Amino acid sequence: MHEFELIKNYFQKLSKRIPGALNLNDDVFFDKKNRLVVSVDTYTEGNHFKDFKKPDLVIKKIIRASISDLICKGVKPKYYFISGSGNKKSFSKVNLSRISKSLSQEQNKYKIFLCGGDTVFSNKLSFTITSIGFAKDIIFRNKAKINDDIYVSGNLGDSYLGLLVLENKIKLNNLLNRYFTNQYYMPSIQLKLTSYLKNFANTAIDISDGLLADLFKMINSQKLSYKIYLKDIPISDKLKKTLDQKKLSKIDYISNGDDYQVLFTASKSKRGVIKRISTNYRIKLTKIGIIQNVAKKSSIVDHNDKEIKLKNKGYFHQF
Amino acid sequence: MHEFELIKNYFQKLSKRIPGALNLNDDVFFDKKNRLVVSVDTYTEGNHFKDFKKPDLVIKKIIRASISDLICKGVKPKYYFISGSGNKKSFSKVNLSRISKSLSQEQNKYKIFLCGGDTVFSNKLSFTITSIGFAKDIIFRNKAKINDDIYVSGNLGDSYLGLLVLENKIKLNNLLNRYFTNQYYMPSIQLKLTSYLKNFANTAIDISDGLLADLFKMINSQKLSYKIYLKDIPISDKLKKTLDQKKLSKIDYISNGDDYQVLFTASKSKRGVIKRISTNYRIKLTKIGIIQNVAKKSSIVDHNDKEIKLKNKGYFHQF
Repeated sequence: MHEFELIKNYFQKLSKRIPGALNLNDDVFFDKKNRLVVSVDTYTEGNHFKDFKKPDLVIKKIIRASISDLICKGVKPKYYFISGSGNKKSFSKVNLSRISKSLSQEQNKYKIFLCGGDTVFSNKLSFTITSIGFAKDIIFRNKAKINDDIYVSGNLGDSYLGLLVLENKIKLNNLLNRYFTNQYYMPSIQLKLTSYLKNFANTAIDISDGLLADLFKMINSQKLSYKIYLKDIPISDKLKKTLDQKKLSKIDYISNGDDYQVLFTASKSKRGVIKRISTNYRIKLTKIGIIQNVAKKSSIVDHNDKEIKLKNKGYFHQF
Repeated sequence: MHEFELIKNYFQKLSKRIPGALNLNDDVFFDKKNRLVVSVDTYTEGNHFKDFKKPDLVIKKIIRASISDLICKGVKPKYYFISGSGNKKSFSKVNLSRISKSLSQEQNKYKIFLCGGDTVFSNKLSFTITSIGFAKDIIFRNKAKINDDIYVSGNLGDSYLGLLVLENKIKLNNLLNRYFTNQYYMPSIQLKLTSYLKNFANTAIDISDGLLADLFKMINSQKLSYKIYLKDIPISDKLKKTLDQKKLSKIDYISNGDDYQVLFTASKSKRGVIKRISTNYRIKLTKIGIIQNVAKKSSIVDHNDKEIKLKNKGYFHQF
């Protein structure tokens, strides 16, 4: 069963009297009266992270993935709660020390604080992170306007290459191995952007499941479509070089998820302010496409304006 | 490793700049400025609930166990988030319908609303519930005063008998089987009490791990001890009759956990108001002991004021 179907059939009715629950279809819960923003996510071994050989890195990844949900809404994360299920090996003294140190580093980097949680015994390792922030307003999904520009922050694809390295599906030199796996475990999430995003974004989402999968989710209940220019999708110099050397196609590496960059749309009139903020605060923001009338099909096109078919559109949650 | 040790050694330092995190040693997180109260708990199959043959009942149990953490602090729960990890069998369409119906019933009964969550695939079934309420003040742990009376709401022990029935460790007639197992799955938590508790309670906790285990937790960082009168511990008529018929000792059935009643202390001067509220609002509140100077040993005594030894003091979380 598709995630949307599951929510729609069984859970949406339970939240209908709470407008801030957004039909359980947005990244966060928003209680405007209390200025409260909440996100809850669960991460399991073998699914969201390969294994727990590097607890310090896994912890960083799941913390960043969690607070990314708030960041893409223009909300600064403030508190987090971590609930871990695992066995004595996963939560050995050595691992607990590493987890604690990693959390401390993330706290300093993102100005967040541990406020509670739970630890329970289980042979299957998983973590649930509850992230909380406060805001007068948030940027919702499904608020794109026709002719909006589509933007993305940072670079895409590095994290996916890191996953391929970890899975031994690609062989690179040590320097590149480390660079890409670090991007997988420690994505460059855009805390700085939260303060400015509300000035120009009509709608936003973070890219966890892949550019096109999340683009679909961002506008899925709107009668709109998108057109994305492959050549404009920002990738790192290291990824560009790697693709060139290995003769790999860019298209296969930019919509595979785990990027945790912010995808948003903005009116054309905001181009100036976006450029200014991008330059002044050194936040990479790239225009990659446009929102169009649903009469036109959603597409990603090459430099000849020809539609490209994707093998992998990203991760759609199934049950 | 003991739960306290784990928190103290690895996690307390991460919350030290947030007073409302209460050193991660209370039932909830309290942000006084934002009037926010949060509790996060994880429940795993085989640990917190035996199996998932009755998903409707398991869901009721974990929802009540979760909001009980807020209720015992004098806080009305308002929102909840549920994150489930499970396989296709656990989350079959039939089970999802039952889960949804159960949640709906609990929402109506306790005036709470689903606001988000997550579902992920896992072969090990577990749920994490985040409960949120709003309050200007809460009742903390470790605020008992010397000579305080110790009270408990409702009855103790029914839930434990229900567990014994489920585990085939005791045989009763069908009527009693159903009564006790219902008390196990659907403990009579005390939502009504939240509005009044702050009028008289100095400190409070909910009984999840067993009367004595939770009594210990309630005052564990205070230089105080307790004296509990076994004869005064409230039990249901059905439990009394069952103990009499089976020639079982009361002491073995009143401190085994899963009661989700409120344990609190109050000054002697509050006896009148407590009696009045108990009578007027039909909330069973029973005085079961006193808080005393730590020079005296904590004890539970029989009708001859003789100390009784417990086989099972309740559940202390180990790792």
